[in-house]
Amino acid sequence: MKIFLAQQNYHIGNFEANTGKILAAMEKARQGGADLAVFSELSICGYPPGDFLEFDHFIAACRSAVDQICALTGDLGVILGAPAVNPSPKGKRLFNAAWLLHQGKVQQVVHKTLLPTYDVFDENRYFEPADHWDIVEFRGVKIALTICEDIWNLGDNPLYRICPMDQLMDQHPDLMINISASPFDYLQKDTRREIIRRNVLKYGLPMVYCNAVGAQTEIIYDGASLVLDRHGEIQEELPCFEEAYAGIDIHFTRDGRVFSQEHAAGTTADRSFRAAASGIPEWFDPERNIPGIHDALILGIRDYFNKMGFSQAVIGSSGGIDSAVTLALAVEALGKKQVHALLMPSPFTSQHAIIDAQALSANLGNPYEIIRIDSINQAFLLALETHFQGIPTGLAEENLQARIRGALLMAVANKFGYILLNTSNKSELSTGYGTLYGDMAGGLSVLGDIYKTQVYALARYLNRGGGLIPGRILDKAPSAELRAEQKDTDTLPEYDQLDKVLFEYIEKRQGPREIIHSGFDAALVSRILNLVNASEYKRNQFCPVIRVSVKAFGVGRRMPIVGKYLS
Amino acid sequence: MKIFLAQQNYHIGNFEANTGKILAAMEKARQGGADLAVFSELSICGYPPGDFLEFDHFIAACRSAVDQICALTGDLGVILGAPAVNPSPKGKRLFNAAWLLHQGKVQQVVHKTLLPTYDVFDENRYFEPADHWDIVEFRGVKIALTICEDIWNLGDNPLYRICPMDQLMDQHPDLMINISASPFDYLQKDTRREIIRRNVLKYGLPMVYCNAVGAQTEIIYDGASLVLDRHGEIQEELPCFEEAYAGIDIHFTRDGRVFSQEHAAGTTADRSFRAAASGIPEWFDPERNIPGIHDALILGIRDYFNKMGFSQAVIGSSGGIDSAVTLALAVEALGKKQVHALLMPSPFTSQHAIIDAQALSANLGNPYEIIRIDSINQAFLLALETHFQGIPTGLAEENLQARIRGALLMAVANKFGYILLNTSNKSELSTGYGTLYGDMAGGLSVLGDIYKTQVYALARYLNRGGGLIPGRILDKAPSAELRAEQKDTDTLPEYDQLDKVLFEYIEKRQGPREIIHSGFDAALVSRILNLVNASEYKRNQFCPVIRVSVKAFGVGRRMPIVGKYLS
Repeated sequence: MKIFLAQQNYHIGNFEANTGKILAAMEKARQGGADLAVFSELSICGYPPGDFLEFDHFIAACRSAVDQICALTGDLGVILGAPAVNPSPKGKRLFNAAWLLHQGKVQQVVHKTLLPTYDVFDENRYFEPADHWDIVEFRGVKIALTICEDIWNLGDNPLYRICPMDQLMDQHPDLMINISASPFDYLQKDTRREIIRRNVLKYGLPMVYCNAVGAQTEIIYDGASLVLDRHGEIQEELPCFEEAYAGIDIHFTRDGRVFSQEHAAGTTADRSFRAAASGIPEWFDPERNIPGIHDALILGIRDYFNKMGFSQAVIGSSGGIDSAVTLALAVEALGKKQVHALLMPSPFTSQHAIIDAQALSANLGNPYEIIRIDSINQAFLLALETHFQGIPTGLAEENLQARIRGALLMAVANKFGYILLNTSNKSELSTGYGTLYGDMAGGLSVLGDIYKTQVYALARYLNRGGGLIPGRILDKAPSAELRAEQKDTDTLPEYDQLDKVLFEYIEKRQGPREIIHSGFDAALVSRILNLVNASEYKRNQFCPVIRVSVKAFGVGRRMPIVGKYLS
Repeated sequence: MKIFLAQQNYHIGNFEANTGKILAAMEKARQGGADLAVFSELSICGYPPGDFLEFDHFIAACRSAVDQICALTGDLGVILGAPAVNPSPKGKRLFNAAWLLHQGKVQQVVHKTLLPTYDVFDENRYFEPADHWDIVEFRGVKIALTICEDIWNLGDNPLYRICPMDQLMDQHPDLMINISASPFDYLQKDTRREIIRRNVLKYGLPMVYCNAVGAQTEIIYDGASLVLDRHGEIQEELPCFEEAYAGIDIHFTRDGRVFSQEHAAGTTADRSFRAAASGIPEWFDPERNIPGIHDALILGIRDYFNKMGFSQAVIGSSGGIDSAVTLALAVEALGKKQVHALLMPSPFTSQHAIIDAQALSANLGNPYEIIRIDSINQAFLLALETHFQGIPTGLAEENLQARIRGALLMAVANKFGYILLNTSNKSELSTGYGTLYGDMAGGLSVLGDIYKTQVYALARYLNRGGGLIPGRILDKAPSAELRAEQKDTDTLPEYDQLDKVLFEYIEKRQGPREIIHSGFDAALVSRILNLVNASEYKRNQFCPVIRVSVKAFGVGRRMPIVGKYLS
C-alpha cells in the first residue's frame, strides 16, 4: 500500500486555507499513485482551537470542511483530524477524532483516548476520551489508527490507566498510523523519536507518524514526521520546521499481514520510559540544541506575521545583546527590508551602544532610524515636576524612559502597519526585570523562553558564518542604561548563577530546599524565587512568548497572580 | 450535633495567614460549644492554587499546615480542604480532598469526584477523580461529605457519568456536608441555591454548605453559605461578600439517624436541571442584579489591594462614565483618601469633561490632580515629525495620546506606590476599542466584565442615595476625545445594539446564524463578530478582569490569538 504523508502548516479556524492545503496535497498524493493520504491531528481546524470548540457554528464549519474534502476523495483514502460530536447525552460534547474518508463517504471515525491536560494542553476542557477501540480497515490493511498522546502510554506513563495500542492489538493490526500535533521544545525531538521506536518494538508493527508543522501563536510544531519499519529502523523522516511530503510504499507480503503480533519484540526497553518522558535534563546547559531553538524562533516569527497578515516588524535596537539577537532573527525570518530598527538614545545611552546598534544594522542590511528621547523625557518630567517635587529620582523615572520608547515604537508600528517585536529574555521575565508598557511592550516575544546565557549562545550561533552581531555586543556587561553607570548585576545576580536557579525552579519545578541541596546559596535561592513569584502580575500582561522549552511563560505555566508563596 | 460553619477569605499560598484564620475560627467554634467546624474547599492553600500544585514543596507546605491544625483539634472535629497525594502510581498525582481532623489525628480523607474543567476551572490539570466513596463518621453521625462540583450532578448533568451522592446513599448518611469554592457571577446565587435545595429534596437529608468568600485576583467567591433542613427549608444563610460564621444545632432524634433514605422526595424537579445549570438567560438585561455586581466589584478591588499589599489607587479621570464609575467604586472599596484621580486633558478634551471630572471628585471627596498632556504630545510629534512626514494624522496619533496618559499614570503609580486601576468596559474590550499600554493599562480591570449599558445601570445604582456621579456624565454621548468631535459611535455600533449582540456571542456562545436568527441585522452581526475575533491579541495583554458574568475575558474565555475565524 502506498501511503502519502502530508506534514502541513494549518491556520486555526481558517477553514478555507486549511481545506485548500489538504485538497492540494490530495492532488499530489494522486499524482504519486498513493492509496492513502494522511494528515495531522485536527488538521481541519488547526491545533489548538481553544474555546472556538464551544461554538456549534465552529463545529459545523469543521464538519462542512470534512464533507467538502470527503466528496473529492474518489479512489484516494484520506485520514485527517477533526472534532467529532459525541452522540451520547453524557460526557463532553466532542471527541478529538481521526476520520477515514474514501469514495465520497466517511468510512470510519476513531476517537482519541489519552487527552493531555497539562502544560500547554487543555484537552479535557473540550473532549471526551474514547471508550472503545476499533481498528480501521483500508484496502485489506488493518490499521491501528491513534491520535498523538495515544501512543505516549506504553503501560508505564503514570498519567494514564489505558494503553490504546494494547486495546487495538486484540484486533491484529498490520500497521500503526498516528496523527499528531506534537509541539517542539529543545529536548522534544529525541524523546518523541524514542517513544515512536518503542511503540514499534513493543507491537512489532511499522509506524506512520504524521505530525503538524508551523507556529500557532506561541506553540511551535516542528514536523519531523516519521516512518519506521517494524524493526524500529527509520524508513522516512520528514524535515523539521517546514511543510513536507513523502510517499511510502509499505509491502505486506502475506495476505497483507506480514507484521503480525508474534513479531512483537523489545518490550524490555519500556522500563526507561518515565525518565525519558519527563525529558528534563539534570543540569541547565545554555548550549543545548541552539540550532533547534534558532529554527523554531525563525518559524515562530514568520508564522506569526503570516497568519496575522503582517509583513514588517519594528524593533527597539539598544546596542545590547537581546535586541541584537531579536533583530538578527527577525531579519532572517522576514527579510532585511522588512525589519525596522529604532534607536532611541537618552543621555544615559553610552556612545558605544549607538555605534554597536548602527554596526549591527549595517551588517544585517536592515533600515534603522534614530529618535532621541531627551526632549520627550524632559516634557514628561516638567509635567510631573510639581507632583514629584522633593522626592528623589528613582524607578519611576527609569520606567518612564522605557515607556517613552514603548510609545515611540508603537507609534511607528501603528503608523506604518508594523508589528513590534519584543526583546525581553526569560531571565528578565522571570525576575520581573523589565518595564510594563516599556521594554515589555510588543506583539510577540522572540526571546521570552530563552535565558540570558542562552541568548549569548544563540548570538554566537548567529555569528557562525561571520560576525553579524558586533563582538562588543557579546562582550560588554548587560545594562538597561536607564541611569548613569547602571548594570544588570546592580539588581540581579550574575546571569550564570541566575539562569541555573531559574531552570531548577521553572523547568524542573524544584522547591527551595531541593535547589539549595543542589549546591546553590540559600540566600540567593530565596531572593530569586521571591523575584519570580512576585512578578506574576507583570508576566500576566506580557505578549505571547515563542515556546522552545519544556516550561514556557504564558500558556504553559499558569500561576495565581495574587498569591503569596515564597514571596 | 453542633456544627460551626466558617465562611472565610483565604490568600493563595499564604499558609501562615490561612492557618491563622482557621485556628482563630476553631477558637470561636470551641467558645460556641461546637462539635465540628467546617471550612471551605482547599481552605489550606486558597482556591485556585494553579501550577503551585506541581511543586512538591507546595504540597508539603499544605500538609504541614494540615498537621499544624490537626495537632490543635482536641475535642473539636475539623473538616477542611487540602490537596492529598495520590498513593497510586497511576493517575494525576493529587486529589482535591476534604480532611476530617479530630483528636490530633487525620481521621479520614475523602476525594472530590467531579472535577470541573471548563470556563475558569482547570481541575483535571491537577487532580485525579475519586474512584471510591465512603461516608465520614463523626460522633455517631454519618456524614456524606462532598466537595463543590460533587453535588452539581443529580444524574442529569450531561458533563458527568457519576453522581457521588448516589454512591454515598448506599451507606445511609444522616447529613450532607459540602465544602465549596463556588464563584460568583451575577446569575449564580439562584442557580446554586436551587442545586442545594434539589440535593436536599432528592436525598431527604439536611445540607451544610460551606462556601469560600473573597477575591482571588479575578474570581470572586461570594460566600452565601447555607444550611438547609431535610425539607429544603433554609435554616441558616450566611451573608454574601464577607467573612461570616454560624453555629448550627442539628438534632438527630432517633439514634442520631432521623434523616434516613426513605424520606427522600422531590426527584421530579430534576428534569429542569440542564436549563438551570446552563443558567444563561435568553436576553441581555443590563439592569440584572446590579447590586450583586456592585458588591462583587467592591470586594474584588479591596481584596486585590489587600492581597497585593497595596492600599492606594490611581485612576485616569476623563469626565466619562467608565472612569466615573471606576472612581466611585474604588472610593467605596478603598476609602476616599486612598484614591487619586488624575485628569490629563489635551486640546481635544471638552471643557465639560474637566468640569465633570472635578465635580465627581468633589462629590466623592477624593484627591485629584490635573496634568495637561499638550507639551508631552508636542514633544512626541516633534520627535516623530521627520518620520511621519506627508502621512495624514490618524490612529497612531490618537493612540499616542492614550499612551502618554498611560505613562503618566504609571509614573505616578510607580512614584507613590499606587496601583493603577483600569477603566475599560467589556464592550470596548470585546471590540478592541482601546489602546494597548494606553487606556488599556492598569493592574486590575474593574469594569472589564461589564458591558457599557451595564456601566450606566451601575452608575444609576451608585447614585441611588444622591448624585455622586454628575448627571451630565450619564447623559452625554460617550467619546474617547482623541480627535475633534469624536464619538464612540463613529467607530462602534450603538451600545444598546452592540451589547445585545456581544452577549449572544460571548455569554451565550451563539454563532452568526443563530444571532441573526434572533433578529439582529446580518451586516451588524458580521461586523461585531469580526471586531471581537480580530482583537484577541489585545485582550491577551490585558490585566486581570474582575469576573462577574458567566463568561469573562481572561481566565474564563480562552481563544487562540493567531486564528482566523469570522474575522
